[in-house]
Amino acid sequence: MTKMWKEIYEQPTVLQNCLIQNTQIINDIIKDIDSRKINNVVIVARGTSDHAGIYGKYIIEHNLGIPVALAAPSIITMYNKKLLLTNSLVIAISQSGQAEDVLEVIKCANEQEAITIGITNFESSPIATNSKYHLYTAAGVEESVAATKTFTSQMMNMALLVAKWSNDEQLISKLSLVPKNVRETLKLSETIVSHISDYVEMNDCFVLSRGINYAIALESALKIQETTYVKAKGYAISDFHHGPFAMVGQQTPVIIYAPEGPSLADANEMITKLKKVGASLIIVTNNQQLLNENKNTFAIPMCDNDLITPFYNIIFAQMFACLLALAKGLNPDQPRGLNKVTITR
Amino acid sequence: MTKMWKEIYEQPTVLQNCLIQNTQIINDIIKDIDSRKINNVVIVARGTSDHAGIYGKYIIEHNLGIPVALAAPSIITMYNKKLLLTNSLVIAISQSGQAEDVLEVIKCANEQEAITIGITNFESSPIATNSKYHLYTAAGVEESVAATKTFTSQMMNMALLVAKWSNDEQLISKLSLVPKNVRETLKLSETIVSHISDYVEMNDCFVLSRGINYAIALESALKIQETTYVKAKGYAISDFHHGPFAMVGQQTPVIIYAPEGPSLADANEMITKLKKVGASLIIVTNNQQLLNENKNTFAIPMCDNDLITPFYNIIFAQMFACLLALAKGLNPDQPRGLNKVTITR
Repeated sequence: MTKMWKEIYEQPTVLQNCLIQNTQIINDIIKDIDSRKINNVVIVARGTSDHAGIYGKYIIEHNLGIPVALAAPSIITMYNKKLLLTNSLVIAISQSGQAEDVLEVIKCANEQEAITIGITNFESSPIATNSKYHLYTAAGVEESVAATKTFTSQMMNMALLVAKWSNDEQLISKLSLVPKNVRETLKLSETIVSHISDYVEMNDCFVLSRGINYAIALESALKIQETTYVKAKGYAISDFHHGPFAMVGQQTPVIIYAPEGPSLADANEMITKLKKVGASLIIVTNNQQLLNENKNTFAIPMCDNDLITPFYNIIFAQMFACLLALAKGLNPDQPRGLNKVTITR
Repeated sequence: MTKMWKEIYEQPTVLQNCLIQNTQIINDIIKDIDSRKINNVVIVARGTSDHAGIYGKYIIEHNLGIPVALAAPSIITMYNKKLLLTNSLVIAISQSGQAEDVLEVIKCANEQEAITIGITNFESSPIATNSKYHLYTAAGVEESVAATKTFTSQMMNMALLVAKWSNDEQLISKLSLVPKNVRETLKLSETIVSHISDYVEMNDCFVLSRGINYAIALESALKIQETTYVKAKGYAISDFHHGPFAMVGQQTPVIIYAPEGPSLADANEMITKLKKVGASLIIVTNNQQLLNENKNTFAIPMCDNDLITPFYNIIFAQMFACLLALAKGLNPDQPRGLNKVTITR
């Protein structure tokens, strides 16, 4: 068994830990936020953590309406300029808590007395200790280079923070069911195992979604890239119409997330368009009609809240990437050219 | 001659028109901004226009320090939620001025009395007429599906707005030289023509840059995608270390922008790393050492301001994409599956 596979399976436990361990600190953060006038939110992260940041952007804008800027750290670290963050909430996300450029943004925010939150997997890391508040991903050591359990626990921290900040009791209650449903989603492994040989010759693919699952399209593509070297690229369905669609030809592999909910109509429209040009579709959905009428479908749990489906969709992608790497004779734990901790300045 | 090629060559004139035609309206916008307390900037766009938006994000954060959020229109159009934009400057960018989801964000902002600006190529378009201010890209009709002249004129409008807003006289003066230097950059066509047959078998490639030229890496990849169907992907060098680097193998084509200035050290580091794994490099630079020591280099004009180099770098990519399409026997004016005006809801 690979480390990546083992860590994928740890996620129900990790997510449960996350929910338990961060409740008190999140209450403290909300009190601080409520005592201040927060005009904007800035999220800063790299790689997989950046995709948890995109999830965070959607969930904050959805539930609170506050525009979220994803920071370009180079403004501070490369151009030596200062961002105005006086009335900002600044959230840094980093598995290791060591990303230097991410840390610089937190320091810049602290100087201006912004509220700063670090979401990391190491309580004594520079980002954890330099942030006013630390949200702990409680994942235990992640040994695989390809991040899995720390990604979902970063999302869980973001979601819990926003659910409490926006007094969304329904979301809080649904989040408490995520660990159980993630465990359910892991059973997809059997279906993926039985189909994976169909994809062993895959050299490139697209991963599409709409709305908050855009974060998952990007993260899915990254998982596939770093473990299988397949040139995978994630797009929002809405952007894919603007140019990238031209790249799709006969048999081009396209993974599409089509959960029940507000994005289903757009996903269905794209599926029809892709079928017309002969793309080879892989559909991840909980829509019964899509499951009945298509081959190569992968079923996620039923869910009536689009802010929750990312947790189930990413489980598919993590398992797909890991199993495809093995089917290709690669070791997903040892991607060429990568290190676990990437320091970018 | 293709329409795309003709329109690439119109850019010096278009950019000159842009500088002349928008000066007065920009002065009015600045007065309005200065009379208000603007806490954040939201930019909304799709496709190529979104890349002009990313350029806008960098130049605003660089010169003014105000965090810029790139809007996810689905929050409003798909989830039916409202963004809080009372003290925001909201900039919509759309070639046609017809993008429905972009228009919805402008309407939401108008209701909250935010300052709204539409940057379009049609003065009577819905986005132009619904925005408080209209910045005109003054490009004449763009017939090629692949946007070229409207992209650089969108960037010019953003740059001129920011230069005046931040009282950056040096930048204003440098922008006035851009039309002439773009004309100079067009001479690169001879070098590209003489090398293009080397790339006719290209099926995929990466396009890398750092800092503000990240916008150009993305736009370059999109131009190559839509005209040649090559699976091109743009990345910030800083993100490329985090996972995507694993996809690079022997002879993988990588286009890298390495202009003189603050990003050069990172570009050089990445070039060294890419050479070690045997990537096939295409370097766009004005650094004499890189030009001397490498094959497959393309020289852009000398420039001491990193906010300006995007105008020269994108000229390379537009010409490269158009010529590669022709070398592959494709018509760059008629990408499969695409229309000039893409309406996303």
